Amino acid sequence: MPKACPQELVAFGERLADTAGEIVRRYYRTPIGVDDKPDASPVTIADRETETAIRKLIGETYPGHGIIGEEHGSERRDATFVWVIDPIDGTRTFIAGRPLFGTLLALLEDGLPILGVIDQPVLRERWVGASGRPTTCNGTPVRTRACPDLAHAVLSTTSPHMFLGDRAAAWDRVRLQSRLVVYGGDCYQYGLIASGFNDVVVEATLQVHDYMPLVPVIEGAGGLVTDWAGAPLTLASGDAIVAAGDRRAHAATLAALAGRN
Amino acid sequence: MPKACPQELVAFGERLADTAGEIVRRYYRTPIGVDDKPDASPVTIADRETETAIRKLIGETYPGHGIIGEEHGSERRDATFVWVIDPIDGTRTFIAGRPLFGTLLALLEDGLPILGVIDQPVLRERWVGASGRPTTCNGTPVRTRACPDLAHAVLSTTSPHMFLGDRAAAWDRVRLQSRLVVYGGDCYQYGLIASGFNDVVVEATLQVHDYMPLVPVIEGAGGLVTDWAGAPLTLASGDAIVAAGDRRAHAATLAALAGRN
Repeated sequence: MPKACPQELVAFGERLADTAGEIVRRYYRTPIGVDDKPDASPVTIADRETETAIRKLIGETYPGHGIIGEEHGSERRDATFVWVIDPIDGTRTFIAGRPLFGTLLALLEDGLPILGVIDQPVLRERWVGASGRPTTCNGTPVRTRACPDLAHAVLSTTSPHMFLGDRAAAWDRVRLQSRLVVYGGDCYQYGLIASGFNDVVVEATLQVHDYMPLVPVIEGAGGLVTDWAGAPLTLASGDAIVAAGDRRAHAATLAALAGRN
Repeated sequence: MPKACPQELVAFGERLADTAGEIVRRYYRTPIGVDDKPDASPVTIADRETETAIRKLIGETYPGHGIIGEEHGSERRDATFVWVIDPIDGTRTFIAGRPLFGTLLALLEDGLPILGVIDQPVLRERWVGASGRPTTCNGTPVRTRACPDLAHAVLSTTSPHMFLGDRAAAWDRVRLQSRLVVYGGDCYQYGLIASGFNDVVVEATLQVHDYMPLVPVIEGAGGLVTDWAGAPLTLASGDAIVAAGDRRAHAATLAALAGRN
């Protein structure tokens, strides 16, 4: 069980998101260059400039804190407090001019996430999860909704191409048991679970900056997010996660992934 | 070449979209019942109530006009002017609480679409295409962007499950040649093409109310939308379409679908 997140750090996390949003909104729906990273995923000047601004603010305010960022790497990774940053989660969605990408921020204390922020800067929807208090969306507490099984579940994932090899069949088992499936959405999907509009998200090929910020948001709203085996997410987790608003739907998803139902 | 659309009918199309938006916004992100239609697609009270309101307004204002609606069928289909209505295109997206569904409206004169409206009532983004004038988004003229080939294309589709049988391989040929692919989005994707933020959309399992409203919007912005063989869309078209902002990208997509490149 992580310690309660100090209010000062919650407020600083929001300040980081404000800073990111100003930059991202400036580049949204403008013609910008796109580079390919070694893993073939795209990155833009907006991703890089946003992460640089976030890192600068952390360095100025909390020079002893560590940082793990998607675009510019790690520093002081063994510090007590470590920030995990994805300046634009859903760069493809951002490039395509759709307002369902977001900035993701987590703060870890001794490796456990005590703060998570999902910020959609165009729609100005921001979910903040912090240990010791309920998750909020734009300041208002939110709760996940009840969903007893997959037959009642609104399921989503960003792309079917996240599921490589045997995982494609595992995903198919989940979606064919679900009420309905929607594609796309990146981090926004997890905010929708926290707010009780969606039930289950299954994803893979994620990295720590993609999933760590989700944990406090989902859990502070009454949901659960784990790896595909049901284990809590840590810096050493694999790349595949399941998030659900209701533990019963979460258990049913794990069972379907494993071919047990 | 269709005749120019009278301004009075453009304004009436916008009034229909206003009426639809008021109803749809009232139901968005609220718990509502979902029924399954015979084709297993979902429908909500919001779809039905919206179409009823649109039909009532058409009947009061232009009693001689025909109507083809997704939820409540056809009347006076052989009239000179026929409205084609999809009250909520992207019902799954609407149910999932994502603001990328939309209301679609077309007006046909002698079977040719002279007016198309794509309205996203939550984000309040509305594309209006009318023969004889440029397509607008929220009143401002928009243009598609240049895209010489698939290697430069931002491609999208609502769901991979639209592509049944041999079409799955055809879709794979297109996406594997494209710059990047984004899933989800329903009618909103076509607005993004008109505004020059996306390049190509490939879809299938569509009905006339899904595709007729797109034609004036895309073509009035400088793009092209046809069936997979390159033929213009009519009430008798099949269920599979290609939309592109640049004719070169459109031709490359047809060739990839047919296995010619």
